Amino acid sequence: MKDLLLIGIGSGDPRQITYEAVEALGQASVFFVLDKGSDKDELVQLRKAILQRYRPEGGYRLVQVADPVREAHADGYLGAVQHWHRQRAVLYAQLINQEVGAGEVGAFLLWGEPTLYDSTLRILDLVRERGVALRLRVIPGISSVQALAARHQVPLNRIGEPLTVLPGRCLATQGRIDNVVVMLDGQCAFAQLDDPALMIYWGAYLGTEDEVLIAGPLPAVKAQILEVRERERARKGWIMDTYLLRRAL
Amino acid sequence: MKDLLLIGIGSGDPRQITYEAVEALGQASVFFVLDKGSDKDELVQLRKAILQRYRPEGGYRLVQVADPVREAHADGYLGAVQHWHRQRAVLYAQLINQEVGAGEVGAFLLWGEPTLYDSTLRILDLVRERGVALRLRVIPGISSVQALAARHQVPLNRIGEPLTVLPGRCLATQGRIDNVVVMLDGQCAFAQLDDPALMIYWGAYLGTEDEVLIAGPLPAVKAQILEVRERERARKGWIMDTYLLRRAL
Repeated sequence: MKDLLLIGIGSGDPRQITYEAVEALGQASVFFVLDKGSDKDELVQLRKAILQRYRPEGGYRLVQVADPVREAHADGYLGAVQHWHRQRAVLYAQLINQEVGAGEVGAFLLWGEPTLYDSTLRILDLVRERGVALRLRVIPGISSVQALAARHQVPLNRIGEPLTVLPGRCLATQGRIDNVVVMLDGQCAFAQLDDPALMIYWGAYLGTEDEVLIAGPLPAVKAQILEVRERERARKGWIMDTYLLRRAL
Repeated sequence: MKDLLLIGIGSGDPRQITYEAVEALGQASVFFVLDKGSDKDELVQLRKAILQRYRPEGGYRLVQVADPVREAHADGYLGAVQHWHRQRAVLYAQLINQEVGAGEVGAFLLWGEPTLYDSTLRILDLVRERGVALRLRVIPGISSVQALAARHQVPLNRIGEPLTVLPGRCLATQGRIDNVVVMLDGQCAFAQLDDPALMIYWGAYLGTEDEVLIAGPLPAVKAQILEVRERERARKGWIMDTYLLRRAL
């Protein structure tokens, strides 16, 4: 039985981590840092900074491995993601078997909230299917959705209305937009909308020193967001952004 | 100009508070604790326990006031809530003017996430409309939605699917249920659903010693949830619960 912690570490501001998460950081023997390639190295550095800040005495191992790259797949987007998860499950099973010894605890440091648009829980299900017995603990973390709303000082929902959170690729097929938060939108799906009643609250690099916030009626600020987003992405080599769309009453 | 902090304090487990929130707790001169009547006194006690834990040296004032009671209203639910918010805005404006002196900082300790189904931000907008100039800071907190998913170790969304969060009163009119989290459901709206493909992940008093978790196919566990919910509500005099509904593939 392998003990694993999935620790939500917030969306960028190292103070946006919970006491429960820091307690969990203190219990881990080995941290798995799986990065997405050198263009996102800064995200690896931010995780190391969190470890240095909250576990300054050291006494842990860091296992840093490049995640497999997601490839196109004959079965489309879902097929591609599922294939990618299976590849990652093979890698994770191997790492967990090799690195988490008897009496040890392994940990994944996850951006935002571990149960929201993060695949680690799903991949660990596949690891179990491969015959590795796991005992998990999941530690919630402040998601970029929450950081966004806090920085704009705007409620995520209006009274009695639902809130929908979705990936960018689902925005075009979403019906009526009342309160919609969009994550993982590399294609700027908001730029395709031209409903004059929509407000947008956009933010990038939330909680870090590079944070950018733009809000306003979508038609009025759309071009500005596209321009700032492209400029910042080019400058830093990567971008993480999210936004809330809301129909004006 | 009055300085105010809206501090998310998590959903029950005092360790589920962020370092940013504790830093903010340390900056406040006066805490406003607005309770909903004696049956929820335990929620006031939990807030006091958080202050004792994270600000043991004291040096702050606690202003404890009973919130106005929400009344039925000729304009239905939305009208009733808006009327209630206006009543609370009158009270909050008075409290803020009286209690937050020059150079002081007032704070609200809010359960869960301050921007998700919490009315404080909206009421403070009404306070501003009454002519009170406010400078706000919003500190995100772990919501019961996140605590629920962490304890059940279940992702809130499936790959590429939207997540919808809604109040119980919206469940009946929600179309297709793929990934739906229901909050504020005093009427047990889930009991009216009889789709055999739905799974439910339910939790009450999340993060506290009274925590109860039940999960399974909705038809199989519905009666058990209703029974446990009523028993616990009767035993404690109040209940806070939430649940995730998901259609099996």
